[in-house]
Amino acid sequence: MKLLPLAFLVPALYSAPLPQPWKSVSAAGHLLIDATFAVEIHGFTDPRMDSAARRFTARIARQTGIPIVGGKTTLLIETASKGGNESYRLDISPERAVLAASTFEGALHGLETFVQLIEPGADGFEVASVHIEDHPRFPWRGLMIDCSRHWMPIEVIERNLDAMAAVKLNVLHWHLSDDQGFRVESKRFPRLQELGSDGHFYTEDQLRHIIAYARDRGIRVVPEFDIPGHTTSWFVGYPELASAPGPYAIERKWGIFQPTMDPSREETYRFLDKFLGEMTALFPDGYFHIGGDEVDPTQWQQSSAIQAFARERHLETPDELQAYFIHRVEEILKKYGKTMIGWDEVLNPDLESDTVIQSWRGQAALADAAKKGHRGILSFGYYLDHLNPASFHYGVDPQVGGKEIDHANAAILGGEACMWSEYVSPETIDSRIWPRSAAIAERLWSPKDVTNLTSLYDRLDAISRVLAWVGVRSNEQRMLDRMGSGPALRVLADASESLGIEGRRDARKYTSLVPLNRFVDAVPPESTVVHHLEQMAERAASNPGGAKAEIDALRAAFTAWSANDGQISGSFLTSELIPLSRNLSNLGSIGLRALEFLSAGKSADPDWAAQQLSQIDAMEKPIAEVRLAAIGPVRILLSAVAGNAARSTVNK
Amino acid sequence: MKLLPLAFLVPALYSAPLPQPWKSVSAAGHLLIDATFAVEIHGFTDPRMDSAARRFTARIARQTGIPIVGGKTTLLIETASKGGNESYRLDISPERAVLAASTFEGALHGLETFVQLIEPGADGFEVASVHIEDHPRFPWRGLMIDCSRHWMPIEVIERNLDAMAAVKLNVLHWHLSDDQGFRVESKRFPRLQELGSDGHFYTEDQLRHIIAYARDRGIRVVPEFDIPGHTTSWFVGYPELASAPGPYAIERKWGIFQPTMDPSREETYRFLDKFLGEMTALFPDGYFHIGGDEVDPTQWQQSSAIQAFARERHLETPDELQAYFIHRVEEILKKYGKTMIGWDEVLNPDLESDTVIQSWRGQAALADAAKKGHRGILSFGYYLDHLNPASFHYGVDPQVGGKEIDHANAAILGGEACMWSEYVSPETIDSRIWPRSAAIAERLWSPKDVTNLTSLYDRLDAISRVLAWVGVRSNEQRMLDRMGSGPALRVLADASESLGIEGRRDARKYTSLVPLNRFVDAVPPESTVVHHLEQMAERAASNPGGAKAEIDALRAAFTAWSANDGQISGSFLTSELIPLSRNLSNLGSIGLRALEFLSAGKSADPDWAAQQLSQIDAMEKPIAEVRLAAIGPVRILLSAVAGNAARSTVNK
Repeated sequence: MKLLPLAFLVPALYSAPLPQPWKSVSAAGHLLIDATFAVEIHGFTDPRMDSAARRFTARIARQTGIPIVGGKTTLLIETASKGGNESYRLDISPERAVLAASTFEGALHGLETFVQLIEPGADGFEVASVHIEDHPRFPWRGLMIDCSRHWMPIEVIERNLDAMAAVKLNVLHWHLSDDQGFRVESKRFPRLQELGSDGHFYTEDQLRHIIAYARDRGIRVVPEFDIPGHTTSWFVGYPELASAPGPYAIERKWGIFQPTMDPSREETYRFLDKFLGEMTALFPDGYFHIGGDEVDPTQWQQSSAIQAFARERHLETPDELQAYFIHRVEEILKKYGKTMIGWDEVLNPDLESDTVIQSWRGQAALADAAKKGHRGILSFGYYLDHLNPASFHYGVDPQVGGKEIDHANAAILGGEACMWSEYVSPETIDSRIWPRSAAIAERLWSPKDVTNLTSLYDRLDAISRVLAWVGVRSNEQRMLDRMGSGPALRVLADASESLGIEGRRDARKYTSLVPLNRFVDAVPPESTVVHHLEQMAERAASNPGGAKAEIDALRAAFTAWSANDGQISGSFLTSELIPLSRNLSNLGSIGLRALEFLSAGKSADPDWAAQQLSQIDAMEKPIAEVRLAAIGPVRILLSAVAGNAARSTVNK
Repeated sequence: MKLLPLAFLVPALYSAPLPQPWKSVSAAGHLLIDATFAVEIHGFTDPRMDSAARRFTARIARQTGIPIVGGKTTLLIETASKGGNESYRLDISPERAVLAASTFEGALHGLETFVQLIEPGADGFEVASVHIEDHPRFPWRGLMIDCSRHWMPIEVIERNLDAMAAVKLNVLHWHLSDDQGFRVESKRFPRLQELGSDGHFYTEDQLRHIIAYARDRGIRVVPEFDIPGHTTSWFVGYPELASAPGPYAIERKWGIFQPTMDPSREETYRFLDKFLGEMTALFPDGYFHIGGDEVDPTQWQQSSAIQAFARERHLETPDELQAYFIHRVEEILKKYGKTMIGWDEVLNPDLESDTVIQSWRGQAALADAAKKGHRGILSFGYYLDHLNPASFHYGVDPQVGGKEIDHANAAILGGEACMWSEYVSPETIDSRIWPRSAAIAERLWSPKDVTNLTSLYDRLDAISRVLAWVGVRSNEQRMLDRMGSGPALRVLADASESLGIEGRRDARKYTSLVPLNRFVDAVPPESTVVHHLEQMAERAASNPGGAKAEIDALRAAFTAWSANDGQISGSFLTSELIPLSRNLSNLGSIGLRALEFLSAGKSADPDWAAQQLSQIDAMEKPIAEVRLAAIGPVRILLSAVAGNAARSTVNK
């Protein structure tokens, strides 16, 4: 939860649903939600429906604070005679709500919409009368979670599954092995987890539990075991799988590493056959992800045996050797009845056409794959670890325009948000996944032309609160408290935004053992407070006379900023923030001056304005891997009072 | 977590331990806590010691954000050759920490102190060198939780046990039955829970789990089954136990009710013998609480059979009849090897001298009981449901002065904070128990002369953060979010304090089915923000010239307050707050004017000051069961600028 330090604003805490339904027609009146709330189910025989109804009733009780005892059918769930796979229809009238869906999954989506519509009214909690018809734009709406680079306990997965369901995502892509850790119990090859995981792995029972937990929430679980690269952790226990002699140790650093499976030995495929046999039996989904990305060919090139093997088979490049390997794995998976998925790099002329390509390279790569008959999943533009704003992800559509790629568009199954875990821990991962993934969820569910950013951000505020009830954790305040500095740190945090992987990887020597307990880890990728201040600054700039409340709010914020310097303690966690705090103080003072000009209806002296703008430009440089978002509203005001001279330097 | 809306303050987020140790001698240097942190145990054979060490290591990892892998003995725990039951000695040097204790419980207390001493230093997390010798003042340091009036799920009990351990409380007094619900599974009399609990009861397995969970944390569990009054829920399934014919229904209202066990029938005692036989076998502690309070004699007086019985036995008053009943129960408990505890009302001339009296009436009542040989536990002054400030509870000492009650003091086992649950739900109970119970914990542990309130409040701020890491939940922000109003509500909440049971019971028709989801339920009993503003106002009033930072902070707060009016929405949850918000706005404006006088070094016009003071006096009246705490700092400033005329009306 982000807190604004000031009053004056009443943002939309309750708002329209996210993702936005395809059709929604309001009517008069509302349905009251009280202690008599009860669900009645008609026509569904799936036992999951009953437990879902109980779960939603408990959630409504939690969300409203009403001790629900039931007694009166408020919500009727019934099977629909027609409709697509995940579609639903929701009719709310003052008498009752009727939810119709032909599948369990569709009914779940309708329940999530219903919960989002509950708001406090004049007489109690209520849902306004409405007729909704809704269905997904794409059938594949995923979230990938990397549990290798940082271990994620089972509770992290559970609460993120609940959050996925809340925004109608339906695929958990579970990245279970990489150089830094092998996270699954194998009964056949126990040294995988015994030596490759630091003791941090999911047992068979836990995997079954998560699969069932996801299924109860309408979510499929697609496992990824990344091969032939990204496999150091496998080789700690089974060095014979590698293309160079061991011994190997769990990788602690981030990057692309040389250890790669040996594609030339039959023993490798016998191992993979047994291993994949075990894993495909554990994971019931029809799809199975084998990674296949970022193979460093060094070990292959340095092995005379592998080189001899390649020559014998006329595999003239590392890509061809990789294609051979991938093809062998494809055959194994086919035997076990699975459809293979791989990253861009698995695409090669010999690939079976039903193999699915997941692209981090972009829509053009998927168009290329579609030409060869492959279906595609877009992850380009949905990499959460870059900490781009929600608006950025929202602007990436899996289907790009242009006649020449219509066939490509038809082959797009959907997309997946990707949470790579170099710079997230169990404590911070929720704040990096949410609420930004909700913007991606809407892109994958709602009509293509739903693109209004003001509406998106209003609804992201609202969905953040829904997600908190669902179980998503913001540990920001606890992390700030841990740092041992007081409210000044809170003000600084509200004015700051964390950099993503690009801004962090060279900032210091990171490994998997470096604590992620600094300011950069606590503050979110987007500052809600600054976002609201920017909106106010724009209103104040365009109509100073009619924006008294905005000017008062901005003045109070700038006053707090200007007093920030000198309030941050000098512990190892906070001393790096002292220059950031000083910049915020200066920014506050500049903002206060700009407000004076604005209130007085005067233009600023051009020299002064230019000087302030160059000061502000210098503040754009990140400090302690953090960006001073607070620059935004001050720049807007400064531009307004300085006229055109200033605007030309706005280049964020 | 309370958030100050403003910078300017650096409160002590890390601070001295709470409860304060008996002896603490600082030394130079500090011990670094890093990823190599490891615990070594010497001499303890209790298997609980190993799991406690693992639990504390995980807690340190969580609290610091360090991924602890171990490897270097940082903390050595060893059995001490001497020392009282719960005492410990802690020696911290730059090389290592040594914790010595003769019991498992003593070692746990030392671990809790150690965890509280960890803070961020210049080079990392560290503990300053220190020599501590510590032991409890009283052996009985309890918290009573009422799980009947509002049902508390097992998670509530677990996290409160963790919190109790953090402040060295050692007795959970579990109030398990009352008119509004019978909360324990009885195999012998299953209709107790089947008909008396709305399905909300602890199973045998859950009871055993909680007893073990508490024992692992050095906490004893003393159950209370309140008889012969407060027993309506028993009679739903077993009406024959009552003194008047049934049928009975679970009580939904709050108060003292007529249904009372029939003391005249042997069947009552046969039932109690079997029931207490079952329960004493489940609960291993040597003490057993039978309540015995607030017996309404109406049913006894209206029953000719009971009246005949009483005449026959020469039991001439209801008190004598009650004494007879209590004596019979005492005999049953003695047979099962338990020492009985009861509330004040069980005291009578025939009571066995080893029966313990728990007093809600006060130290004089305990002195009276001590004369008759009874040991005592004080709960007078520790009733959490009255929502008194921590300073009030802190000022209540179990041992009052005066020679005539020395024998009474010697008989005092300790005290218990009491959380009666008419006005708390699982969502709000943590915020009503903590951090105020920590003040009571210190009263029961630390030397009698540890009474400095500034130090207490500093350390309550710090312990609140420790308790958050332990698992205590503040749901305040979520509850405000639920109400659907924005940051203005946050400002109003920071300026408000909830009334306790005395201020609520007549405010509206409360029952156990009324949602506790209003503003009064969200805001805490004491406003940390206002407390800090009062401190600043006092500094500003006494030395306006040297308190620029304080005046700036006060101005910013008053500015935010003055803008509060008109920002609160009109839903059923918020419309009652509109007059409160208006008062806060007025208060902000008055405060700003007072600051102007203060800054200018001028006195206010007496007429103006008197007028403002009468406005403020009118604001003392609670609105929506909430007190406007914000009055405090404004009154201080107004008094300062108005001189003596104003001070005379300060009568809060």
